[in-house]
Amino acid sequence: MDGRLPPRLVVPAGGIGGARFLRGLLDVAPPGAEITVIGNTGDDIWLHGLRVCPDLDTVMYTLGGGISDERGWGREDETFTVKDELAAYGVEPTWFGLGDRDIATHLVRTRMLQAGYPLSAVTEALCTRWQPGVRLLPMSDERAETHVVVDDPDGTVGEDGQPQRRALHFQEWWVRYRAALPAHEIVLVGAQETRPAPGVLEAIAAADAIILPPSNPVVSIGTILQVSGMRQALLDSPAPIVGVSPIIGGRPVRGMADACLEAIGVETSAGAVGAHYGARTSGGILDGWLVDEVDAPVEIPGVTVTSLPLLMSDPAATGRIAAAALDLAERLHR
Amino acid sequence: MDGRLPPRLVVPAGGIGGARFLRGLLDVAPPGAEITVIGNTGDDIWLHGLRVCPDLDTVMYTLGGGISDERGWGREDETFTVKDELAAYGVEPTWFGLGDRDIATHLVRTRMLQAGYPLSAVTEALCTRWQPGVRLLPMSDERAETHVVVDDPDGTVGEDGQPQRRALHFQEWWVRYRAALPAHEIVLVGAQETRPAPGVLEAIAAADAIILPPSNPVVSIGTILQVSGMRQALLDSPAPIVGVSPIIGGRPVRGMADACLEAIGVETSAGAVGAHYGARTSGGILDGWLVDEVDAPVEIPGVTVTSLPLLMSDPAATGRIAAAALDLAERLHR
Repeated sequence: MDGRLPPRLVVPAGGIGGARFLRGLLDVAPPGAEITVIGNTGDDIWLHGLRVCPDLDTVMYTLGGGISDERGWGREDETFTVKDELAAYGVEPTWFGLGDRDIATHLVRTRMLQAGYPLSAVTEALCTRWQPGVRLLPMSDERAETHVVVDDPDGTVGEDGQPQRRALHFQEWWVRYRAALPAHEIVLVGAQETRPAPGVLEAIAAADAIILPPSNPVVSIGTILQVSGMRQALLDSPAPIVGVSPIIGGRPVRGMADACLEAIGVETSAGAVGAHYGARTSGGILDGWLVDEVDAPVEIPGVTVTSLPLLMSDPAATGRIAAAALDLAERLHR
Repeated sequence: MDGRLPPRLVVPAGGIGGARFLRGLLDVAPPGAEITVIGNTGDDIWLHGLRVCPDLDTVMYTLGGGISDERGWGREDETFTVKDELAAYGVEPTWFGLGDRDIATHLVRTRMLQAGYPLSAVTEALCTRWQPGVRLLPMSDERAETHVVVDDPDGTVGEDGQPQRRALHFQEWWVRYRAALPAHEIVLVGAQETRPAPGVLEAIAAADAIILPPSNPVVSIGTILQVSGMRQALLDSPAPIVGVSPIIGGRPVRGMADACLEAIGVETSAGAVGAHYGARTSGGILDGWLVDEVDAPVEIPGVTVTSLPLLMSDPAATGRIAAAALDLAERLHR
């Protein structure tokens, strides 16, 4: 970002919000910019024997021109024949609806994984079709899955008369129960054993700027941070880290991030999320923080806060947000 | 078949021809008849990570009302979205086109197999949806695959200047090359280790009649006969065995059986196929043999041959053929 070389940008990202932000970033990034996306894989799930990576696919489809803009996830012009037929057999879960086009992606992925390729290699292979314009890396080649501890939705009561607790896969909590079951805890099962995928640490170390898009701070960015060594790599990087608040006016830009924040005891506000990420000067991961004008002023000691309209209402608006993040990173460059 | 009890019929069967015959048999079988189908699984194949059992599915869909009558295989009202998308990735074989509806069946099957259920249990589970009206058993729960030895289709030549030989999976030879590559040999790989699925030997031993439908005598019936103990069980069964010729006027009723017969050195004629099956009195498997009127007279020592129109042109015609097979079995009952 010293103007001599095209910048190397690193963006840890979740699904829809991250993907939309990335589309804006690609629009405004300097020519030749190299963008490495570290995709959340804590939401990944085995469904019908297929390995589904919702966040990686949302980024890949969005940047590759295959996304359903209406839904924000899955493929455009999608059909659901396989889903309906699976339901007719009555032996497979029906709450997660995979589309027919989408299933082809999962078939290719599952085949390659079962043939022994790591997820990073599989993702690269899938991206040769989609040409997303970024280098898309899974946060890890190893499996760590986000689970949400809730009172058993079937109402089971323990010997002590209290509701029995049960850990649901994140997707079951999010999609099946629409995050309506209060979460006692959100746990990335297997986090300790999960190492960053090849290229992740190198990209962070070589970055000119690291941008946190308005992804879910708990189950997207928070999950990525739990991969062993990831948080330390961010702390050690010479690059400035600028985040974009996923909360505007006390509400998530998109999705049900408030239910996740509540589970970890963080208020649903731009200031509280920024403080939760924390200033790098005090062991956190932020140098800069973009909040919406409705949330200004926000003060987080050690973090440079800028306010601007943060609603990604169209590509132009999203581009302005991404440009503001790059500008702030430029200013904070050491 | 002594008229006191509903008969127990056993039908070893391949795909389209066998399934159509079975539909006729169900139309004319006495009330309460129990029909056990021993399905050929030598054509089964792993495709896109899915376990595909073409013959079992053709029987299941045909008798369950889900078949495409036009094609004879696969589902009615089928779409091919997944196939087109797989092709777009460019990393999966494209010569075997699985339909979207059909893929749901393979997903359920693959899931259950990978969970440890034997194919016979999986087939039973799939049939709870389709209610084919027969007990559909795979010939074996173990894997034996028909391979066809051909000159390498890529034209590779060995050190001796002769075309290099290559074994293709039966489906590749049949579907991709439309059986147009001359077959040096047709081999059921793994046949020695393959035992009949649970219930198969018991059904044969308890049968009142065993009917061989006009399935491919080499890669359907011939394959089933190669399962360890299967031929002996037929020889030992007290039930009469009546076969229906798959050859009419020197041509296969359907499909490319002539290419298979050529590979094993058997003429494509009703008489030659009957003689190939052989009379039980001389170690073969036939007591009775139905041939078309155009092929009469056929004489096979030890086999009672009857002639009638054998073209399964519509359900009524097929019913008449099945009824004739039952009648002949009745006459031959010991």
